[in-house]
Amino acid sequence: MADVARVAGVSSATVSYVLSGKRPVAPETRAAVEAAIADLSFTINATARSLRTGRSSLVALIVPDIANPFFAQLAATLDEELRGLGLHVVVCNTRARRAEEQALLAEATQQRFAGVVITPFRLKPNDFEPIVGAGIPVVVSADVSFGPIDLVTPDAGNAIRRALEEVAAAGRRRIAMIAGPRDATGGDPRLEQLRALALQFGMSLPRELVVRGEHARQAGAAGFGELMSRRYRPDAIFCGNDVIAIGAMDKANELGVNIPADVALIGHDDASFASLVRPQLTTIRYPAAGVGRAAAQLLIERLNGRQVHKTVHIKAEFVARSSV
Amino acid sequence: MADVARVAGVSSATVSYVLSGKRPVAPETRAAVEAAIADLSFTINATARSLRTGRSSLVALIVPDIANPFFAQLAATLDEELRGLGLHVVVCNTRARRAEEQALLAEATQQRFAGVVITPFRLKPNDFEPIVGAGIPVVVSADVSFGPIDLVTPDAGNAIRRALEEVAAAGRRRIAMIAGPRDATGGDPRLEQLRALALQFGMSLPRELVVRGEHARQAGAAGFGELMSRRYRPDAIFCGNDVIAIGAMDKANELGVNIPADVALIGHDDASFASLVRPQLTTIRYPAAGVGRAAAQLLIERLNGRQVHKTVHIKAEFVARSSV
Repeated sequence: MADVARVAGVSSATVSYVLSGKRPVAPETRAAVEAAIADLSFTINATARSLRTGRSSLVALIVPDIANPFFAQLAATLDEELRGLGLHVVVCNTRARRAEEQALLAEATQQRFAGVVITPFRLKPNDFEPIVGAGIPVVVSADVSFGPIDLVTPDAGNAIRRALEEVAAAGRRRIAMIAGPRDATGGDPRLEQLRALALQFGMSLPRELVVRGEHARQAGAAGFGELMSRRYRPDAIFCGNDVIAIGAMDKANELGVNIPADVALIGHDDASFASLVRPQLTTIRYPAAGVGRAAAQLLIERLNGRQVHKTVHIKAEFVARSSV
Repeated sequence: MADVARVAGVSSATVSYVLSGKRPVAPETRAAVEAAIADLSFTINATARSLRTGRSSLVALIVPDIANPFFAQLAATLDEELRGLGLHVVVCNTRARRAEEQALLAEATQQRFAGVVITPFRLKPNDFEPIVGAGIPVVVSADVSFGPIDLVTPDAGNAIRRALEEVAAAGRRRIAMIAGPRDATGGDPRLEQLRALALQFGMSLPRELVVRGEHARQAGAAGFGELMSRRYRPDAIFCGNDVIAIGAMDKANELGVNIPADVALIGHDDASFASLVRPQLTTIRYPAAGVGRAAAQLLIERLNGRQVHKTVHIKAEFVARSSV
């Protein structure tokens, strides 16, 4: 009771009035006491869990780019979903580097983390063997599978078809892509999917209109510059994610290229800034909150003893704004 | 050597050629091998450190709002500065709630983290006693001091003076502020400082032109709406941070209020989106990279045995864009 009073910033007597209902208490005071009780019960749960299982109450979210708001949103949702169980989400940044991805998995294993949600970039499926062998639940959020591990992955076919319809309706035919690096695990599935679907629309995505780089703003700028210097210039550019698209916009401003008049631009993710930039970015929305909820659910099922692995597909959605 | 070859994705023979210089090796292969060696030596350092000290190699960055790009940038810089020492930064989100701030400090103490960098919101100075008592280095990044703990804090006086000059030059006199909540530790020092400096410019910041809320986009929208409904309407609004300012812009769009024609808007931080929005946000830049470097430096000094506490002031800077 003293703890509740301390956290709520009220007297012990007030806490007892709230619990007993023997005296009237102002609504905001009651709310503060109730919030303190809820918060403390989370803390107690966490400690109890950790004593019981010999595990920490930490869940690592391991991401390639902590500055990408998509991952901030994913972190916030995961946190929201797991805090009720007394778990704390900590976010780790790998900068898409294989050695850091490996080091962080090793750290999570050694420290007996309660679980890991990871967007791997250059890991291989067998990099997961030690952590899975240690009995720590792992969920991968990625476009490709990393072996027999729980997976949350986009179902983006319809959204990309809608984007291609929009591009075609604007009379555009010469599509290009600023894709991820060649050595990412599984290559760039967004590129393969775009190529396959473009054919259905009678458009091709020729080799010389694919440029590659990291999922970074500078890479987007460099890629856009490269495409604009081609003899066969594209009139619509798809980007591996929204961060790349913002970099492309930087370069367009610098070169005096008008979007969408000269070239259309399509992002991927619908990160928070996509509707803040001008022109507002047309994009394939991959809902971070939906991904976070699915990942939390998979993790909770594992903590409750599920053994067989599962894949959850999250629908992506075409969002028409002003860059096409 | 086998580990280096595995990480770099080359044969052991190639690694040996790079090390011995006995045969020519393609520049990109050499770079991959050198990167692998550097990465592995970090990992080995981390494990050695952890065995030696009984501590984890994790440094927690504990922040009130993981979705605020200011903190993402701070995290990235801290990571950059500390990885050479074999330390990994993990980011934890408190949502500005006291119970979660307490729970995360307790977790870092219990898990023997290598260090903590924290922007506390509702903690009190004595909340730090257990972690400091456990010998874990702590650095606070905040506008107010939290007792005898290393502190990185803004020196914003000149920047705010420049902002007020700009506001005055635009013929504006009725300034307002969307400030942080009343129960944050130390109140809102940005409000106190603005009030004191405004007086020097012959402007006042009356009670009815101060609205309060969380450092959140919705709170910015609500605060802007409230100010616009006042009989005595402001013609320039200062915001507690850029996230609040974006929320104010949302509401201005909704109400058809023109920024800056009807009312000027000034943010704080210069988060990454400040130059992406239209009108581009005029703001007080508090450089996240500078804060991250200073915090890393303080942490490293503590790890090396410094005992007396230090305060580092980081200069803020006025950035004129289009919202004034």
